[in-house]
Amino acid sequence: MSGIASGVPYKTYLSEDELPRQWYNVRADMQTGHAPILNPATLQPVTVADIEPVFCTELAKQELNITDRYIDIPEPVRDFYKMYRPSPLIRAHYLEKQLGTPAKIYYKFEGNNTSGSHKLNSSIAQAYYAKQQGLKALTTETGAGQWGTALAMACCYFDLDLLVYMVKVSYEQKPYRKAVMETYGAKVIASPSDTTNVGRKILGEFPHSGGSLGCAISEAVETAVSTPDTRYVLGSVLNQVLLHQSIIGLEAKLALEKLDVYPDIVIGSAGGGSNLGGLMAPFMEDRLAGRSAPHFIAVEPASCPSLTRGRFAYDFCDTGQVTPLAKMYTLGNGFIPSANHAGGLRFHGMSPILSQLYHDGYLDEARAVEQGDVFAAAELFARCEGTLPAPESSHAIRVAIDEALKCKEAGEEKTILFGLTGTGYFDLAAYMQYNAGTMTDVIPTDEDLERGFATIPQLEGIQ
Amino acid sequence: MSGIASGVPYKTYLSEDELPRQWYNVRADMQTGHAPILNPATLQPVTVADIEPVFCTELAKQELNITDRYIDIPEPVRDFYKMYRPSPLIRAHYLEKQLGTPAKIYYKFEGNNTSGSHKLNSSIAQAYYAKQQGLKALTTETGAGQWGTALAMACCYFDLDLLVYMVKVSYEQKPYRKAVMETYGAKVIASPSDTTNVGRKILGEFPHSGGSLGCAISEAVETAVSTPDTRYVLGSVLNQVLLHQSIIGLEAKLALEKLDVYPDIVIGSAGGGSNLGGLMAPFMEDRLAGRSAPHFIAVEPASCPSLTRGRFAYDFCDTGQVTPLAKMYTLGNGFIPSANHAGGLRFHGMSPILSQLYHDGYLDEARAVEQGDVFAAAELFARCEGTLPAPESSHAIRVAIDEALKCKEAGEEKTILFGLTGTGYFDLAAYMQYNAGTMTDVIPTDEDLERGFATIPQLEGIQ
Repeated sequence: MSGIASGVPYKTYLSEDELPRQWYNVRADMQTGHAPILNPATLQPVTVADIEPVFCTELAKQELNITDRYIDIPEPVRDFYKMYRPSPLIRAHYLEKQLGTPAKIYYKFEGNNTSGSHKLNSSIAQAYYAKQQGLKALTTETGAGQWGTALAMACCYFDLDLLVYMVKVSYEQKPYRKAVMETYGAKVIASPSDTTNVGRKILGEFPHSGGSLGCAISEAVETAVSTPDTRYVLGSVLNQVLLHQSIIGLEAKLALEKLDVYPDIVIGSAGGGSNLGGLMAPFMEDRLAGRSAPHFIAVEPASCPSLTRGRFAYDFCDTGQVTPLAKMYTLGNGFIPSANHAGGLRFHGMSPILSQLYHDGYLDEARAVEQGDVFAAAELFARCEGTLPAPESSHAIRVAIDEALKCKEAGEEKTILFGLTGTGYFDLAAYMQYNAGTMTDVIPTDEDLERGFATIPQLEGIQ
Repeated sequence: MSGIASGVPYKTYLSEDELPRQWYNVRADMQTGHAPILNPATLQPVTVADIEPVFCTELAKQELNITDRYIDIPEPVRDFYKMYRPSPLIRAHYLEKQLGTPAKIYYKFEGNNTSGSHKLNSSIAQAYYAKQQGLKALTTETGAGQWGTALAMACCYFDLDLLVYMVKVSYEQKPYRKAVMETYGAKVIASPSDTTNVGRKILGEFPHSGGSLGCAISEAVETAVSTPDTRYVLGSVLNQVLLHQSIIGLEAKLALEKLDVYPDIVIGSAGGGSNLGGLMAPFMEDRLAGRSAPHFIAVEPASCPSLTRGRFAYDFCDTGQVTPLAKMYTLGNGFIPSANHAGGLRFHGMSPILSQLYHDGYLDEARAVEQGDVFAAAELFARCEGTLPAPESSHAIRVAIDEALKCKEAGEEKTILFGLTGTGYFDLAAYMQYNAGTMTDVIPTDEDLERGFATIPQLEGIQ
């Protein structure tokens, strides 16, 4: 290899002064309606008062805010952002060259921080509001550990205690993720645990349970509501999280403007939806205002295909059915995806915002990709671009490569933007499996899906 | 915490156009002499012809070059550098605030790449010259795995085969480091192995040997010289490596100039010496030219104190005594440091350049620090600055903090620059040990040192 393809720099950094001062709340521009979040007991839209026993009050307000288009980023949050933001916008010169495509590929890289992902963008905001409210502690759950790590860093910065319920099987398989959280002062408990009623109940029935995200959420919520000055926080799916993650798209759009570039296609991996929601937000603003806008593609694992094979319905956000009901694309709260290395994408539902936009045709397309194809893309990317991507992020890489190859075939110079959400330094067991040729993927059958759909609540007169 | 202490930005990035076009060869300015590298058979200074069966010819020339002050960075190497360079110069606002020091602390961060360290700066240059020479393959050894990873990335980029002899105990303990190398296409073999005479000999005597860096070097060299179109490369100690690493200091000095800052103190961790040698190079240029210059501090582990307790003498660079003789501070090629988490700093000797500069009083000071103190600094740094540092890098952090606290006591506003060479994502077993309170350190006794010194060759009329 030699020579960079054009005069465009490899990395474009905004200055710290250019770091956005406001998040963008896409819901203020969603004219086609919002299905409100419902209280499962009353089936009425939840109010701030309903959810503030669980969430920080300011975050509860953000969760329900459909009117303010821009919301100020608090200065202490902007200060923290400056430790690792603005993140680079990278022109994938080397990948383009390897593919021999006329397409121009850009990616926004969110992995250059110790949490290794974009999760830090929201965790620091959530910790800030908790501190402002005078709270002492937060609780959360974590599966793969990215969110737990990001929240541990944020709580350490604002001097808040943090209790992380980590799915037991991950707790045992990923001691290093736990070690990072502990280095930042978090207390990490394997879930199910004997610290909660729900944990003790499960352990009583299944003493050797390896746990589940659903169970860990239930334990974290129970502890939050039963402990003084403590609240529960979540790293994806929620409207507040997509709001905070809009920083990704706002920076990306500004950096592209400096290069006089507007993307034709915007691609993001989608599990709970926070990364894609954040990346596409300011471009979706164009679309919603009737201006020309990119073609948006959400990429999900074939093993957990909520957008491509799910139903748009009210469902619980957790398996334990303790959360409010959200209208979203869902495989059913009881759907159990097969084991998969993209732990961050194994959620039965999808962000209500993304779901609504997809349902209304603003989020143009969703694609499900298989794990082996994802790792082939990941390895090619690592070798060309020098960064070992996380399995989750590599879903977007797969489709970016596919689109770039289509451009090659058609001789089209489209501009592609995708989100590289994180690094794969804690995912090397997956790469080992891929290199050994033993990687497989399990695609749910129609019968599997039907079993999941059967767990979606039947709400008289609502759906 | 809130607010950044001053108007100085957190990160200063040079543009890609400002990436230096030449490395700086400090030896051209070292008027006080150079002890030549000796052929151990003849005790005469080695020539390019002597070492080019082992090293690429261009690298052999660089190794012996004491006349050219600046050497052009080949454009393909600069292109690769642009994937992760210029690296950020960071003002440690949050650490300063935590310490309450009037000192201004800057660090040059080399960890934002998948190899996780500064090693990539030299590996890509070495791979380039090998490719230019028409070679097909390289061999090397790796202990902790940072160098092996960096070289795997470089060989992948230039389409060279790579064979890495990995010390068996690391091979077994660090499967993830191996996985990264394999993802980049390297072949990784546990050393001692049955692929070489020296490996078979050791296995014959000690079938359960866990290996050593010395043995791995010997195997890598044997394979290189006995395989067509293959050469051996090394990641530190050598003059050529310090030359390539001067990119760190050149960028740092330029970025500081933009901020109108000149450091009072420059601090670097020192194992083989490549990072400190690179960071201080352009500031040492000032010193050697008689201009005012910073106070230079090398930091080494108390368990392997080559500068602070070693002898300045001709010694072999490897335990197997197959390399040429270099005049350096050494604990003796037979010195075995105690197990320590800073695997990258466990070398019995020290870069001949740094050794000469230290002996001649240009490198002002060396300090040995203990592992527990290093990890206390590492954890404090991680919590303040958001980046989890490598154990090796944390030696420099320890002394930077100590100097900043001295400034606090004295009320002095000194400017401190240190090198943050890498991230600790593959070192979490060490952090776990620290968090569990079970970390210890073994400082060699005078008797231990005497046993090491006894392995330094006695060279009639030379020392």
